[in-house]
Amino acid sequence: MKKTLLYEGKAKKIYETDQPHVVLVEYKNSLTAFNALKKGEFEGKGQINRDVTSLIFRELTKSGIPTHWIQDVGLTEMLVHQVSIIPIEVVVRNILAGSTAKKFGINEGKVLHKPLVEFYYKNDNLQDPFMSDDQALMMGIVIEKDIAEMKDLALKINEQLKMIFEKIGIRLVDFKIEFGKKLNGQIVLADEITPDCCRLWDVKTNEKLDKDRFRRDLGYVKESYEEVLQRLKGSVQ
Amino acid sequence: MKKTLLYEGKAKKIYETDQPHVVLVEYKNSLTAFNALKKGEFEGKGQINRDVTSLIFRELTKSGIPTHWIQDVGLTEMLVHQVSIIPIEVVVRNILAGSTAKKFGINEGKVLHKPLVEFYYKNDNLQDPFMSDDQALMMGIVIEKDIAEMKDLALKINEQLKMIFEKIGIRLVDFKIEFGKKLNGQIVLADEITPDCCRLWDVKTNEKLDKDRFRRDLGYVKESYEEVLQRLKGSVQ
Repeated sequence: MKKTLLYEGKAKKIYETDQPHVVLVEYKNSLTAFNALKKGEFEGKGQINRDVTSLIFRELTKSGIPTHWIQDVGLTEMLVHQVSIIPIEVVVRNILAGSTAKKFGINEGKVLHKPLVEFYYKNDNLQDPFMSDDQALMMGIVIEKDIAEMKDLALKINEQLKMIFEKIGIRLVDFKIEFGKKLNGQIVLADEITPDCCRLWDVKTNEKLDKDRFRRDLGYVKESYEEVLQRLKGSVQ
Repeated sequence: MKKTLLYEGKAKKIYETDQPHVVLVEYKNSLTAFNALKKGEFEGKGQINRDVTSLIFRELTKSGIPTHWIQDVGLTEMLVHQVSIIPIEVVVRNILAGSTAKKFGINEGKVLHKPLVEFYYKNDNLQDPFMSDDQALMMGIVIEKDIAEMKDLALKINEQLKMIFEKIGIRLVDFKIEFGKKLNGQIVLADEITPDCCRLWDVKTNEKLDKDRFRRDLGYVKESYEEVLQRLKGSVQ
């Protein structure tokens, strides 16, 4: 079923398939941070992240959010619609943490009155710089209609994700998503939603259950990713 | 006439006056770059920059753009309406240069299809970070109406400035302005417009006639500032 490797990213590989406009995503065990300056991996990570993404994408579909997901394959793979990825990493923040907290000299943990949507230019060589809507337009990556649609979708996804995680005792601090355009021009949620690209804090203990455990050398990385998956499995079908 | 010093910035001092809601701005001879890591000065700079700002602000007023300028005093000072400065450095770019060119890996000199307006959070301790409209709203610095008004004014100012400089053989690459709110809430152009905060390239020679001569150690700093003033004086009354 897998054919030519089309693309290898930091955490996933994309293969051609027999079906036209359908590609296969393989989730790898590798773990990177700080634009891949810090590297790691753990056994089972690919499977956990595939399962988490698949569970969440299916939940989002039920709420009317279009995604690229078609079906899971084996333990670490999924079939998805081929899309051309819009080179914008869309970040939604409910609580300030990470680069934006630092940039404005605000302590991590500040709860925002309303969710903040941010765009980062997806370009490893330039280290994914933060950009404004006007800069995204200037770069010719998107048109105004795309921006409005992406922001609208990002906020809807945020509302659904907050509910999904709240049910399992997790506070959704922030997350990064990517959108793709299908052949017919439709913008759909692509890439993944996993502890690699979300900040997830346990509601009771404030314990981090995400990639910050790896970034900040907090230990129990694998256990935290597993914890997220187990809680999701117990709540979402 | 000058009374208590209210504020000393990198290139100007602000004094209280006898008149209510009127302050006096004194232009200093100092020159700084890279958030004041690089320091310099030259005799006569205060006078040149006062004169350039005054000439330009009076031209802008004729085109219906509200500014804080009231009248010049002595050689290096001007009376202006007291405003509360909106802590956003508004940059307008016609040609890419400086930080934005670098951020996107684009060579300096790329002419933009339409002017790009950028916001930087005016905070020396945080090194004036670039921010999006949504981040400015999140920080509670402005409301949506202010953003629309500031962008509209910035683009109108750009159109006027381009014409003013075109007439004297200078290409307006980019510039930084600041807005203030008067007591009645009106947003007006404040601060200054000088070779300190514009990129000005001679149309014929492409020679830089602005602070980049100081930033990049190109020499003839004073001569370039004087050149801009003399050309303006010969064109604008």
